[in-house]
Amino acid sequence: MAERTDDADLTVAELGEFGLIDRLARIAHGAQRDPLRPEAAGAIGIGDDAALWTPRRGYHEVLTTDALIEGVHFRHTTTSWRDLGWKALAENVSDIAAMGARPKLAFVTLGLRPDTRVADLENLYRGFVDFMQEGLDGGIDLRIGGGDTVSSPVTMLSVTVVGALRGDGLRRAAGTDGDLLAVTGALGGSAGGLAVLEAGEASLGNPDVEILVDMHRRPVPRVLEGLSLAAAGVRCGMDLSDGLLGDVGKLAYASGLSAVVDIHTLPIPPALWRHVGGEAARMMALAGGEDYELLVAAPAGIVERASERLGEYHLEWPGSGYLAPLTVVGRLVAGTPGQVTVLDEHGQPVAPPRRSWDHFRSGGTGS
Amino acid sequence: MAERTDDADLTVAELGEFGLIDRLARIAHGAQRDPLRPEAAGAIGIGDDAALWTPRRGYHEVLTTDALIEGVHFRHTTTSWRDLGWKALAENVSDIAAMGARPKLAFVTLGLRPDTRVADLENLYRGFVDFMQEGLDGGIDLRIGGGDTVSSPVTMLSVTVVGALRGDGLRRAAGTDGDLLAVTGALGGSAGGLAVLEAGEASLGNPDVEILVDMHRRPVPRVLEGLSLAAAGVRCGMDLSDGLLGDVGKLAYASGLSAVVDIHTLPIPPALWRHVGGEAARMMALAGGEDYELLVAAPAGIVERASERLGEYHLEWPGSGYLAPLTVVGRLVAGTPGQVTVLDEHGQPVAPPRRSWDHFRSGGTGS
Repeated sequence: MAERTDDADLTVAELGEFGLIDRLARIAHGAQRDPLRPEAAGAIGIGDDAALWTPRRGYHEVLTTDALIEGVHFRHTTTSWRDLGWKALAENVSDIAAMGARPKLAFVTLGLRPDTRVADLENLYRGFVDFMQEGLDGGIDLRIGGGDTVSSPVTMLSVTVVGALRGDGLRRAAGTDGDLLAVTGALGGSAGGLAVLEAGEASLGNPDVEILVDMHRRPVPRVLEGLSLAAAGVRCGMDLSDGLLGDVGKLAYASGLSAVVDIHTLPIPPALWRHVGGEAARMMALAGGEDYELLVAAPAGIVERASERLGEYHLEWPGSGYLAPLTVVGRLVAGTPGQVTVLDEHGQPVAPPRRSWDHFRSGGTGS
Repeated sequence: MAERTDDADLTVAELGEFGLIDRLARIAHGAQRDPLRPEAAGAIGIGDDAALWTPRRGYHEVLTTDALIEGVHFRHTTTSWRDLGWKALAENVSDIAAMGARPKLAFVTLGLRPDTRVADLENLYRGFVDFMQEGLDGGIDLRIGGGDTVSSPVTMLSVTVVGALRGDGLRRAAGTDGDLLAVTGALGGSAGGLAVLEAGEASLGNPDVEILVDMHRRPVPRVLEGLSLAAAGVRCGMDLSDGLLGDVGKLAYASGLSAVVDIHTLPIPPALWRHVGGEAARMMALAGGEDYELLVAAPAGIVERASERLGEYHLEWPGSGYLAPLTVVGRLVAGTPGQVTVLDEHGQPVAPPRRSWDHFRSGGTGS
């Protein structure tokens, strides 16, 4: 829908998320004497998932915040409190990983219905602990530094994570013409798990189903991978939270380029391939959200070097046994900024199923 | 109500905010290898308004997060969007001021109803800008670094502010036996403004009423005062968000001491005194919340030195013309930790109106 700039009754739903962020950023930035860090403008500001800050010369911080609202991003009937705790931290930590930074501190704001059971909240915190413990096992020492607890008519979690960044890290805007697009891990597993849950198939005892549901409920952000990619010389990257197609578009737009995605190259979790078949699996890999893998753009030589380094980590999601630590899925090309062309194995354009997620226009459960 | 530790159906409302925070902190801390900074344990952890972090030797950060929920902390019918923006930043910045730190970056998460008018959100952001501009005029360069915007059934703002701390700053737990208790500015104005609004008297054109309403709607956190107090050698302090009586109790508890408050010494804004009378004004100064002044505890010599330094700032709330930059209102004494005795001008105990605010047990509009 076109932006009706003169309409005093224009609503958030009519304007859409990105138009809204643009408008609000213009007001906020008018009050700021200068950008926080002019050379990193793409990584800073309202609407970016993570902001880069340099409080002291030589020391960079990355900060991100994300909210989960009952009935919008989750439902208590399909998401356990413990999984909710995991996911709330994972989403934010993934934004830190997307910058090539290391998560350090989390702040948790809880909006709680007064009739919320204390036992449920304890399970929420056990989910936080599960996530922090898994990170600790992998060398990531994330801690809960504080928060706020308020009364609310619906359950609401707002998490802020602070990360420390050495070196340049990863930015959306750093892509160049001819860069290869590559992703860590496998794509579509979370969408497959969500489909299984929505179809009520989760309790069938099928190992593939269990793998997919786990991928949806307990995504593992790619922190060590982000650090490794940046160390290998990758400069352009982001995390895949809204689906490959939309996120490639955002990366390409920020870099002022178009993009091509070769749909037959997408790394599909074997469990997804087996459970839903190749065609549906590819669509989930292309457009499904919440995989929390990393998407990077870099020249071929750097992608190769990064792939070798990533191989040392023995990346693994339980049972998914995917093929490569880093898979080339397309490339950046000159053209209309943000335009994405999807090609099939014969080089023919494929009509995309949907572009991305708009938090105000859809009533689904993604985020 | 007593804590029913074995009851699986115990609700948040039954347990209360502080019991809940205790339980959750126990779970979260079990997963953390060691406290963030053992010597500052009182300033860190779930339940504190601000956390102290030392990312690099010699560089301390202070982080705080606070949420405002429609129908709980504000109502659109009585709080304009522009005032809401001011207040959301002011509350968080006050927590930074309470640590003797300087606010640097704010992150704003908005939960918005899809039918929210864009024009209202623009006014919210103008409120942010008003606040940042007022800070800039006073030498405080707070910026909005980013955020998240999500769909929500009720309006929700969650703000996180990062501050930079030089030196030791202020902590709740640093009070010692015999310290004087002192407050910046004047107390009760915000409660007076709220009472005026709730009574529908806000549009009478009475200048006292306008002053009180402004104190409620646009509180000014005491950032420069916090920096100055810390520089003068004050080590123990916090901000007054929940009312003097409750907050003195928290400071005394954290310091392992009891406290005495002399009710006749409380600094009352003249507008409040004139509008509601001395008795009601004193009760508002004692128990009303959201004044966002600073409460400190220090030996008499340091309070005197700090008072002289603060005098240089020419502190002023519009029209309130209060008496002193720092007013002694009581003292810390040996005794049951957290116990507060309120004395009248004859040294006789006064029955306190209420202790503090519990976010889950009350249905009011405070925070």
